[in-house]
Amino acid sequence: MNIEQVWKDLEKDLAGVEQCLSQNLQSSAPLISEVGFHMLSGGGKRIRPLLLLLSAKACGYRGARHHLLGSIVEYIHTASLLHDDVIDEASIRRGQASANRVFGNQASILVGDFLYSKALYLAVREQNQEIMDVLSDATTVMSEGEVMQLASIGNLDLTEGEYLTVVTNKTAVLISAACHLGAILADAPSSHKQALVQFGLDVGIAFQLIDDALDYAAQEGKLGKKVGKDLMEGKVTLPIVHLLRHSEAAEKSRIQRIFENGTPDAEDATFVLDCIDKYDSMDYTLKQARSYVQTAKQHLDPIEGSPAKDALFAVSDYISRRER
Amino acid sequence: MNIEQVWKDLEKDLAGVEQCLSQNLQSSAPLISEVGFHMLSGGGKRIRPLLLLLSAKACGYRGARHHLLGSIVEYIHTASLLHDDVIDEASIRRGQASANRVFGNQASILVGDFLYSKALYLAVREQNQEIMDVLSDATTVMSEGEVMQLASIGNLDLTEGEYLTVVTNKTAVLISAACHLGAILADAPSSHKQALVQFGLDVGIAFQLIDDALDYAAQEGKLGKKVGKDLMEGKVTLPIVHLLRHSEAAEKSRIQRIFENGTPDAEDATFVLDCIDKYDSMDYTLKQARSYVQTAKQHLDPIEGSPAKDALFAVSDYISRRER
Repeated sequence: MNIEQVWKDLEKDLAGVEQCLSQNLQSSAPLISEVGFHMLSGGGKRIRPLLLLLSAKACGYRGARHHLLGSIVEYIHTASLLHDDVIDEASIRRGQASANRVFGNQASILVGDFLYSKALYLAVREQNQEIMDVLSDATTVMSEGEVMQLASIGNLDLTEGEYLTVVTNKTAVLISAACHLGAILADAPSSHKQALVQFGLDVGIAFQLIDDALDYAAQEGKLGKKVGKDLMEGKVTLPIVHLLRHSEAAEKSRIQRIFENGTPDAEDATFVLDCIDKYDSMDYTLKQARSYVQTAKQHLDPIEGSPAKDALFAVSDYISRRER
Repeated sequence: MNIEQVWKDLEKDLAGVEQCLSQNLQSSAPLISEVGFHMLSGGGKRIRPLLLLLSAKACGYRGARHHLLGSIVEYIHTASLLHDDVIDEASIRRGQASANRVFGNQASILVGDFLYSKALYLAVREQNQEIMDVLSDATTVMSEGEVMQLASIGNLDLTEGEYLTVVTNKTAVLISAACHLGAILADAPSSHKQALVQFGLDVGIAFQLIDDALDYAAQEGKLGKKVGKDLMEGKVTLPIVHLLRHSEAAEKSRIQRIFENGTPDAEDATFVLDCIDKYDSMDYTLKQARSYVQTAKQHLDPIEGSPAKDALFAVSDYISRRER
């Protein structure tokens, strides 16, 4: 099964998620719907709702709450994107103008707060303690991960272990929660829940590793190689951690200077990208991601084979192979 | 009973709240504790925990969860202050440097997100559906109120009714939730819960009205009268709504120009303050606040007399009489 087949098979369910997403944006403050629709119509791939729907199905779920729950995890994800874009002073998100550029930082912060609150409000109305435990834990850990990432900006002593903790917290825990919620909806046995929690964590880590690797995919700019946003923002990700572990002293100290100065020019960018090339640091990162996806799949062993399980495999393959 | 007596009588309980506040700031991200302690040691008056403690006591509560719940509402309030200060580009909060000035906007946004999440995380662990209903409703309405306020900046057509909706949502609903949670803890009858909900709403509106009135208390600056932050930020509050209702056409259009230009100088400030004086717009706002406090007290009629009820009266008097 490939990802296109998955999108097709789940067309109706994904439409159900979309309906919940727009329905719950209605508010007495029209700015909320405006910013919300801008974000939600921006071509997001709905990976989290997709994993939730498939996890529920893989555990035999036949009910009707999965659309709403899918929209809840997407709201939380969207809220974090709104705040991230303010923090990173982003001007582009998925090829279109970012919400902070269109509506301003103030609206992005406040509508992000609204989406967080609304997500938890909707979840609370499900009256299911286990769902609330998972969601409130995930959002807390996520926000800790975001703070850790902020604190690690420019920290070239960051170890691979510390990097993985940040990635797990800021990205993987919500993806894992999405899978977990599917299993909870289906009232799956604890072994199935645990299988999906672990699957989600490893897929989530892989997802972020691919993102971080692709950020160093060389793009030819007018004045030489163009550098991705992580280097511009001083974010230390796995390609850099790996590079610093292998580069020579002179290279290391030049990279250090580039991070300290904060605004790498085309020459700096070319230097860093050449080093990443020389030490295969991007390949290393991609290889790690693929290995996480392999482990993720193995976690699903306790779950019986089904089209939904095949689809979970297809989604994880898609994540590990995507090119942007 | 006066407010000093209330602080004294509740000393132990307030210390219990403080303990919960610091305890739950522990995190693997040290920046969270730093920003958190900066905010929580900044001399906040803990009005919301105080009202929660007293509401619980007025309904006969004898348990031990009120400290934690008090800290939860204070976390939510603190999170909103962190985001407000970023939005208003504030540099001072309660006489000391604001968190955004000390730690930056990024840390303020993310630690605000953490405090929101942590508050709901702690509340979820209480395993009480009614508590979660109240809290998740309050945070959602609060964030809508904040968005409404942002959308109303510079809107000189704002009516008193629209202004009151913003104030109710952004401020009064959380204060009301604090009172409600006290009654829920005490397992109070529905009539007592409703009494405290209404009390909290009216006290909360009064609280914000006083804030908005005092913002126009004339302060002598070096170059004439100094203007408060609301006018600087273009926030249309009740003194301005009242003023525009009564001023002459020429005054109205000058006020309009001042709001449109955005950065009032000393002459503009003096003009606005003189108008507010001429039409008693600050007095009107203060009088409205006191009338809300009177109504608030009447809502408590169904609740038997007790030292805690007297203390609730004392807190509401304190709110309506405070001078900064």
